[in-house]
Amino acid sequence: MVEKIIELTGSSVNSIEEAVSLAVARAAVTISGIYQIQLTDITAQVEDGRVVRWKVKIKATFPVKDRIHE
Amino acid sequence: MVEKIIELTGSSVNSIEEAVSLAVARAAVTISGIYQIQLTDITAQVEDGRVVRWKVKIKATFPVKDRIHE
Amino acid sequence: MVEKIIELTGSSVNSIEEAVSLAVARAAVTISGIYQIQLTDITAQVEDGRVVRWKVKIKATFPVKDRIHE
Amino acid sequence: MVEKIIELTGSSVNSIEEAVSLAVARAAVTISGIYQIQLTDITAQVEDGRVVRWKVKIKATFPVKDRIHE
Amino acid sequence: MVEKIIELTGSSVNSIEEAVSLAVARAAVTISGIYQIQLTDITAQVEDGRVVRWKVKIKATFPVKDRIHE
Amino acid sequence: MVEKIIELTGSSVNSIEEAVSLAVARAAVTISGIYQIQLTDITAQVEDGRVVRWKVKIKATFPVKDRIHE
Amino acid sequence: MVEKIIELTGSSVNSIEEAVSLAVARAAVTISGIYQIQLTDITAQVEDGRVVRWKVKIKATFPVKDRIHE
Amino acid sequence: MVEKIIELTGSSVNSIEEAVSLAVARAAVTISGIYQIQLTDITAQVEDGRVVRWKVKIKATFPVKDRIHE
Amino acid sequence: MVEKIIELTGSSVNSIEEAVSLAVARAAVTISGIYQIQLTDITAQVEDGRVVRWKVKIKATFPVKDRIHE
Amino acid sequence: MVEKIIELTGSSVNSIEEAVSLAVARAAVTISGIYQIQLTDITAQVEDGRVVRWKVKIKATFPVKDRIHE
Amino acid sequence: MVEKIIELTGSSVNSIEEAVSLAVARAAVTISGIYQIQLTDITAQVEDGRVVRWKVKIKATFPVKDRIHE
Amino acid sequence: MVEKIIELTGSSVNSIEEAVSLAVARAAVTISGIYQIQLTDITAQVEDGRVVRWKVKIKATFPVKDRIHE
Repeated sequence: MVEKIIELTGSSVNSIEEAVSLAVARAAVTISGIYQIQLTDITAQVEDGRVVRWKVKIKATFPVKDRIHE
Repeated sequence: MVEKIIELTGSSVNSIEEAVSLAVARAAVTISGIYQIQLTDITAQVEDGRVVRWKVKIKATFPVKDRIHE
Repeated sequence: MVEKIIELTGSSVNSIEEAVSLAVARAAVTISGIYQIQLTDITAQVEDGRVVRWKVKIKATFPVKDRIHE
Repeated sequence: MVEKIIELTGSSVNSIEEAVSLAVARAAVTISGIYQIQLTDITAQVEDGRVVRWKVKIKATFPVKDRIHE
Repeated sequence: MVEKIIELTGSSVNSIEEAVSLAVARAAVTISGIYQIQLTDITAQVEDGRVVRWKVKIKATFPVKDRIHE
Repeated sequence: MVEKIIELTGSSVNSIEEAVSLAVARAAVTISGIYQIQLTDITAQVEDGRVVRWKVKIKATFPVKDRIHE
Repeated sequence: MVEKIIELTGSSVNSIEEAVSLAVARAAVTISGIYQIQLTDITAQVEDGRVVRWKVKIKATFPVKDRIHE
Repeated sequence: MVEKIIELTGSSVNSIEEAVSLAVARAAVTISGIYQIQLTDITAQVEDGRVVRWKVKIKATFPVKDRIHE
Repeated sequence: MVEKIIELTGSSVNSIEEAVSLAVARAAVTISGIYQIQLTDITAQVEDGRVVRWKVKIKATFPVKDRIHE
Repeated sequence: MVEKIIELTGSSVNSIEEAVSLAVARAAVTISGIYQIQLTDITAQVEDGRVVRWKVKIKATFPVKDRIHE
Repeated sequence: MVEKIIELTGSSVNSIEEAVSLAVARAAVTISGIYQIQLTDITAQVEDGRVVRWKVKIKATFPVKDRIHE
Repeated sequence: MVEKIIELTGSSVNSIEEAVSLAVARAAVTISGIYQIQLTDITAQVEDGRVVRWKVKIKATFPVKDRIHE
């Protein structure tokens, strides 16, 4: 079985976990079978001394089913 | 004083913090004196486009009291 | 436009996100314009098998307005 | 000439080399022109004290011919 | 908003900057919305003691609009 | 479920794969449940211009069942 | 002699070298004695498939003369 | 021959070398056969502008003789 | 409590430890509360085949008391 | 005893191990005493979806006997 | 075919590219066959707030023809 | 001016500093102009729970005067 790993970002005003979840949910709309992610970077946007948005980079892994795209 | 550092994983359906806390609590059953952990890796298990489990790698540090095992 | 990046730590008894937010809020008392942070290290203090404090290292970026200090 | 680099995993019960070769062969079904891979991670699945499957992560490079997909 | 990050190479006989620019321009033919790149590797091809081509690896980030491809 | 990760070396006169397998088999004599290893370093001993022994470092992961030792 | 190392960003629409030079020139307005920089990160802002701004992170080193600030 | 690698810290008020030596000596009380260490981190505790204690992280390697512990 | 981490270099003709200690002592003249340093780089100046000066890079951590400077 | 470490590449159509062995054998023609290598990079050349050549980077260590060359 | 990789520095008052090119040209005076370099570090010398010299570290690769030197 | 960087090991029964100094002194017998070293790895040989030899890896930099050897 061959898998592909893609790199995504996600963001949330609430938490690191929600930023990851939103990216995963969005990717799952067109990619089926994502079974694992790794969190590779955590940043946050700041305004007036307050964190207003958490932003994450993730690597998502899924089995190749049909075609791998260029 | 000499300390030992061991590597553990923990997981939780709820949050990254809980995954760390569960690993620490489990280790403390037989190891006394853990006073610090470092979070070295964060992954998550995904099913049907939803994160169903957070998984962490931690390094836990504690003072050597009696014997260091092979 | 030139920016400066400084390294800070923050801590919280509640969560990783709160540890970041407290560091950002404290820095914003005397530095204006912080617009982004990167989370570079996550550790925790442990007592009696429980995490009692989350501690983070962050890099905070802000535009240089007046003077850069030695 | 512009190239794209994608990240794949492959696995084999026999060897590290075969795990790489199977991933390359599978990718070549729909992507033409892969000319180089880099092996970035080697793990293995273990059962009853025996390695039962080698698993590799590779980065595969190929020239962009037609379109780069989102 | 979810973004995707892809890895590309570009090359130029003139400069590092031009190698980056050519990769970005080529990717933009079929991907809209690339707004940032990171330069992750710089190599050069040498012939007869002269650099004849600069080659770069970049990571390009763009918002996911329609579908994320396998 | 909490897991422990330990670091081992193994060696073989024949191949990298065999060096890993021998380390895993030896560890499994007293530790049950090892289900995954990661290969983190590959070296070789050389004599008279020939590789005479392959040596690997691996990280082995297993679920904590009874007690975690100091 | 004790030196301090600070981290800055600079940017330029023209080249990587100019982005570095502008950051150095700006820092030199209030800090004397910067004698060396290291380039630690190169990114670029992209619009409509064209690089519109190069952005660099640098570490600048200078001897401590008077006071090191909190 | 299979070896195990464990991570320890040691400290000394006098020097980096002594901090390593004390950790090695303490580990050797219950582990026989340690033949090599690698120094992976050097920190120091400071009070009133003076280093009052050097602290090191080391990885110690020894042949597995009897049992490898959970 | 929020802390700041600054990067310094120190040097000594005698030893690595003395190079660290001199940097710490110099910084403590105007910054109070430095309680920990990490040694991140060790180089040496050589003349006529002899090391004539040890040079270290350290990261020094101290609690923010009054103001954090731009 | 002082040793020198040099970096070499080797390649083989058959396996990773053979690529290492060929590099070691070639180096041993003019350098005596190589006793250890470390494998630092593994890539492969691909044609028509098949790996046609394994290529490795190694660091080879040997005692300095006579002269170290510029 | 076995290749050797050596590490060089080059410098130029004009640009990063010229610093690389000068190092390559100098090495080619006595080494034939250099066909690729990798740029591994970029620093600059600064005087009076201006970059006066770019300095690069490169790794240069060439096929071993005759002898590899100690 | 073009410089070459070579990698050496040195060892001493007394200290890390002496291990570096011995490697530098030995290299200076046949290479003139070494002006800087970087300490890249520190290990130690242990016997019966005592450190019996410190071993270092260093990178030594010197200007290329005459010829660069294959």
